[in-house]
Amino acid sequence: MPNPQSVADRSPLLGFTSDNIAGASPEIIQALVNCNAEQANPYGGDNWTGRVQEQLRDLFEHDLDVFLVPTGTAANALCLSAMTPPWGSVFCHPGSHINNDECGAPEFFSHGAKIVTVDGPSCKLDVSSLARAVNVKVGDVHATQPACVSITQATEVGSVYSLDEIAAIGDVCASASVGLHMDGSRFANALVSLGCSPAEMTWKSGVGALSFGATKNGALGVEAIVLFDEKLRATMGYRRKRAGHLLSKMRFLSAQMEAYLANDLWLHNARQANGMAKLLVEGLKQIPAVHLPGEVQANIVFCSLPLAITDGLLRAGFKFYHDRWEPGIVRFVTSFASQEQDIANLLAHIEALAAKSLHKLDELNVAG
Amino acid sequence: MPNPQSVADRSPLLGFTSDNIAGASPEIIQALVNCNAEQANPYGGDNWTGRVQEQLRDLFEHDLDVFLVPTGTAANALCLSAMTPPWGSVFCHPGSHINNDECGAPEFFSHGAKIVTVDGPSCKLDVSSLARAVNVKVGDVHATQPACVSITQATEVGSVYSLDEIAAIGDVCASASVGLHMDGSRFANALVSLGCSPAEMTWKSGVGALSFGATKNGALGVEAIVLFDEKLRATMGYRRKRAGHLLSKMRFLSAQMEAYLANDLWLHNARQANGMAKLLVEGLKQIPAVHLPGEVQANIVFCSLPLAITDGLLRAGFKFYHDRWEPGIVRFVTSFASQEQDIANLLAHIEALAAKSLHKLDELNVAG
Amino acid sequence: MPNPQSVADRSPLLGFTSDNIAGASPEIIQALVNCNAEQANPYGGDNWTGRVQEQLRDLFEHDLDVFLVPTGTAANALCLSAMTPPWGSVFCHPGSHINNDECGAPEFFSHGAKIVTVDGPSCKLDVSSLARAVNVKVGDVHATQPACVSITQATEVGSVYSLDEIAAIGDVCASASVGLHMDGSRFANALVSLGCSPAEMTWKSGVGALSFGATKNGALGVEAIVLFDEKLRATMGYRRKRAGHLLSKMRFLSAQMEAYLANDLWLHNARQANGMAKLLVEGLKQIPAVHLPGEVQANIVFCSLPLAITDGLLRAGFKFYHDRWEPGIVRFVTSFASQEQDIANLLAHIEALAAKSLHKLDELNVAG
Amino acid sequence: MPNPQSVADRSPLLGFTSDNIAGASPEIIQALVNCNAEQANPYGGDNWTGRVQEQLRDLFEHDLDVFLVPTGTAANALCLSAMTPPWGSVFCHPGSHINNDECGAPEFFSHGAKIVTVDGPSCKLDVSSLARAVNVKVGDVHATQPACVSITQATEVGSVYSLDEIAAIGDVCASASVGLHMDGSRFANALVSLGCSPAEMTWKSGVGALSFGATKNGALGVEAIVLFDEKLRATMGYRRKRAGHLLSKMRFLSAQMEAYLANDLWLHNARQANGMAKLLVEGLKQIPAVHLPGEVQANIVFCSLPLAITDGLLRAGFKFYHDRWEPGIVRFVTSFASQEQDIANLLAHIEALAAKSLHKLDELNVAG
Repeated sequence: MPNPQSVADRSPLLGFTSDNIAGASPEIIQALVNCNAEQANPYGGDNWTGRVQEQLRDLFEHDLDVFLVPTGTAANALCLSAMTPPWGSVFCHPGSHINNDECGAPEFFSHGAKIVTVDGPSCKLDVSSLARAVNVKVGDVHATQPACVSITQATEVGSVYSLDEIAAIGDVCASASVGLHMDGSRFANALVSLGCSPAEMTWKSGVGALSFGATKNGALGVEAIVLFDEKLRATMGYRRKRAGHLLSKMRFLSAQMEAYLANDLWLHNARQANGMAKLLVEGLKQIPAVHLPGEVQANIVFCSLPLAITDGLLRAGFKFYHDRWEPGIVRFVTSFASQEQDIANLLAHIEALAAKSLHKLDELNVAG
Repeated sequence: MPNPQSVADRSPLLGFTSDNIAGASPEIIQALVNCNAEQANPYGGDNWTGRVQEQLRDLFEHDLDVFLVPTGTAANALCLSAMTPPWGSVFCHPGSHINNDECGAPEFFSHGAKIVTVDGPSCKLDVSSLARAVNVKVGDVHATQPACVSITQATEVGSVYSLDEIAAIGDVCASASVGLHMDGSRFANALVSLGCSPAEMTWKSGVGALSFGATKNGALGVEAIVLFDEKLRATMGYRRKRAGHLLSKMRFLSAQMEAYLANDLWLHNARQANGMAKLLVEGLKQIPAVHLPGEVQANIVFCSLPLAITDGLLRAGFKFYHDRWEPGIVRFVTSFASQEQDIANLLAHIEALAAKSLHKLDELNVAG
Repeated sequence: MPNPQSVADRSPLLGFTSDNIAGASPEIIQALVNCNAEQANPYGGDNWTGRVQEQLRDLFEHDLDVFLVPTGTAANALCLSAMTPPWGSVFCHPGSHINNDECGAPEFFSHGAKIVTVDGPSCKLDVSSLARAVNVKVGDVHATQPACVSITQATEVGSVYSLDEIAAIGDVCASASVGLHMDGSRFANALVSLGCSPAEMTWKSGVGALSFGATKNGALGVEAIVLFDEKLRATMGYRRKRAGHLLSKMRFLSAQMEAYLANDLWLHNARQANGMAKLLVEGLKQIPAVHLPGEVQANIVFCSLPLAITDGLLRAGFKFYHDRWEPGIVRFVTSFASQEQDIANLLAHIEALAAKSLHKLDELNVAG
Repeated sequence: MPNPQSVADRSPLLGFTSDNIAGASPEIIQALVNCNAEQANPYGGDNWTGRVQEQLRDLFEHDLDVFLVPTGTAANALCLSAMTPPWGSVFCHPGSHINNDECGAPEFFSHGAKIVTVDGPSCKLDVSSLARAVNVKVGDVHATQPACVSITQATEVGSVYSLDEIAAIGDVCASASVGLHMDGSRFANALVSLGCSPAEMTWKSGVGALSFGATKNGALGVEAIVLFDEKLRATMGYRRKRAGHLLSKMRFLSAQMEAYLANDLWLHNARQANGMAKLLVEGLKQIPAVHLPGEVQANIVFCSLPLAITDGLLRAGFKFYHDRWEPGIVRFVTSFASQEQDIANLLAHIEALAAKSLHKLDELNVAG
């Protein structure tokens, strides 16, 4: 079995830009090797695809339809396109991926629906603002019409909606007869953080459509559109094909997903990513120069670093985002591939740089 | 190295439905294994992607931009969307994939451009009909405007445009100032059939944008949008991202393409597929009950079979399309994975069924 | 009351290009004058609009919703957009206005639905070809899906579907569960030609949505989208507004339609137009040099004219289409504004030119 | 000549909801009567349309192309569609008509461009916020790309950009290479307020495309798309036709516009509307119970009224918006049709209601 990321052999990983800079889990690579042995019906008529549908029905304890696609942007945009007419409003947080990072894919797939942002702390929708927003100008032909809500779990800043928070949003959606979509690009990270069941975090809380991500958490490139809401299912096959997202050799997506779900690999990977983030947080808390602005619930760590430390880390070859937010704020993302030695190495560098800064400061003070 | 299709071990392949029922070349699977060993920049900022761009520039002997996507439908629709305004006409053969088999993807990506068909024998555009079509109602605001032409090489029925034929179409396009797109989902099969250079079959004959297929010829799922025409390049990055076709772990597409092009694997695979089709044709010609309507230039074989033979093959587990055209017409598609033993096995079954039919006929005659 | 087209005062009309070169009926102009006297609620909340809805319900003897728009292209495209998903097929005749003359408006409004043509004589759909077409690849995600049928009554060449013909098409639609749209840009001309009721020509024959034209038959610019099919109604208000076709001072569209329907003005106008076409046909039949290829059922007359006559008419200032079809074919369109003197004048010119030609021919013969 | 709004004969107008509840200027109605006298080429090939193009070139002292359409929503959405790719960002004020009141028409016509709001006082874009916004993520394929800016003149709350303010926005646009659109639905009201030339308020300040409104200021329904920027012109004819906004009997739009511009009718009308708003403001200032929150620069008057007064006005038959903003805020809009007697009548009612309220208050005080 291929094991390209054997920990003992490699030098510490320096990349913390995102969880998408990791490769894939060896088990998933192996699944590709295995599934190559025979001819298979194209376009999802193969056995792997059939089995994935069963796996997800079991996992979510609900009837559902599954449509695999190669990217999260495709999953999100296809889900939303089934939940809004072109003249609909899609409500989401200003910081959401669908609003900022998909080059207008939701607008493209929905033929021009309007993304309307509803703010809230920690990249989570404020439920009372949402309750007002979904009831504005209903039935008024001059205005786009409330159509659906999209939340990201875990959010783009690594926070996690509690089950109560999701259910409250689900209630707002239900009472306004608008759908609820969950962008689960980091679904596993949120799930292990909450310690709940997939059913609880989705349809039991009012979610009708889910983008179930696997890419960031160990796959090469596969995401599952999971449709709990029966009304959304009939058109999805046409939408996916028309968007060029129906792969002819579908088995190579399905085999990834099958291996991802088998033996709880996905939960294991997410626990590793979250655990490494926690380890990083604990280390950072010991360094006085570092400030941690919020609680870390998944695999994303925001902190404020003195410029000298940031510069030092970049010079040492570390990679992470440092110039996207207010000055001094940096982001570290861990993944299933992160290991203790990687975190220890990062922390050691930060400590050393912090000590050096302090030393310099002392010198300056002495000089002064 | 994984070799899931080792010929000696396996029973004969019974599937001739399409070249997309094969798995992937072992070399390409191995490339995925290899490229998994390290962290890599996402979204194409990795080394594999850079190298593929260089490989294709060398191969085509031309400056060009490359955009990898996971499906041929995406490649075609993205190319066309850059070549036509929403009020443009896209000219193609009635039998073309973009007209019949993409659920309107070209219309979706182009925001409603009109596919206008121009007929011709062997699924190839008649050049004089095309010359008329591209000059209809130019500048008339009541009519969609001639925007581009799309040809498929090799065509959907396995025929191949000669260089002269492509150049003649290229001339028509140039004189009408419309672009020329080539759907090269079976580019390699056509190329080895003509024995020309990639440059000759594309930009030297007037092609501005190419969907360069790899999936049908040995990849898991990757196609390259190759833009020779500089005017088409600036917007493609946005189009691809907006359509959800920019993979975060892009290296896994690029590594496939790199291995596909390395050591002439792509040419080797295409020669194998074409060669097996030729072998099949030669065998079929020996069987009086079988009629071959046209010349076979690539890896698709159409023939007419007596119903008894078709039924017998299906009962024996063979898979192929037999009910899509006029009664009696069947289609066999070979691929890089087809081996002499597979063809021999198919021919043996046809011969036996033909003999049996003849025998029955004799009995009937005697009885009569 | 304004009467700008008082017949006695004016010289004969020389334009026979189309019925859209006429102005408006004096009664309709007067209605605009009248409706200007007061303030009125905008966007259709006015009394004129309410009354038009009632008029059309009475006229069609059916519950229905009415949406007024300023153009036939808007009416057609809006109707079709409610009858097809973006991945749907819209079946129509190759010669139909929606296929040729709307610059892709149906594709724009429907977000890329595919117009699939079904041929037939006299610009009328062949019902058995249609029956096959609407059942192709149903449920196959690779193909656009049969969604609706559009027929033009009277057709673009002036022929008229019989009630039986419409009902046969309606039956095909019903059995395939696809909708039936009627482009009634010349609805009145067809109706008076058949001598049936509006109900018989529409919902009783299976029509679910109608573009009810008034512009060509005496209005300045107003068409009614008439929705018999209840399923189509809920979204139309949004579609119209979003397309910029909800006029703020809607009363000025509604007043036109109210006057058009009042006192059977619309039927009177259509009888005038058809009658003048008939008069023209009778005259043309007396001229040996002229050939009439088909029956004239509405207000469009196709005939073949010797080139010398066509040239002579053009030199004399007559306007008509003469270079759009095979050589020698010309088209004369009459309208509500055409008067006997106009037809007599046209016929007199043709006769004189024919005599002159004959004379020349004689001279040539003598000379020969 | 028709004069349906002869002042002497009528009772005071009670409607102040919007300027679109007025009818049309008698001169414009008369122009429709006049232009009905003859046959005319359809689709803008008539003389009226040609003359309007000349009128607007003279008026704006610039080469330009004109495209008449029946609604402001169409004008805005068509302009914007020529100024942004589908993956573009259109910057405008949160309170702008294109953001709130067109049911997503800009998104529809532009195939999904993203409206990004930039706030500022008095419904005017803050120029430094705009300067930042148009430079965000340029060239980043993950984000929609800055494409154009749209300002409304006069704004939706009746404020007017000064020439300096427009020029500052024009400079930001130029330096970021994005276009500048002006929604001039109340262009005339702004122009007479500033007392500048049409050229100064548009292309001299950086405006590339203008929606030049006439409907709210005396026409039945016509708006001119005025394209100063040569790059925007080539595609507009196709866009308009495809959207169903090319009227066959175009003369009836053009004649409205011709009469609107002739003899400065448009300026006269705007001065009347603005003057009546000023008169209203002066009267309101004399009533202590009424508070005027801002300066009135055009024909829209916002004020805060005690609930008793609002209720009293509604009971007396007055019409105006009173429940769209914070409690107590009402809006009165005057138009070209408003006369001194209408304003006097409204003021008299407010005064009487205020006095009554005061009286009741006194009674309460006495009682207390």
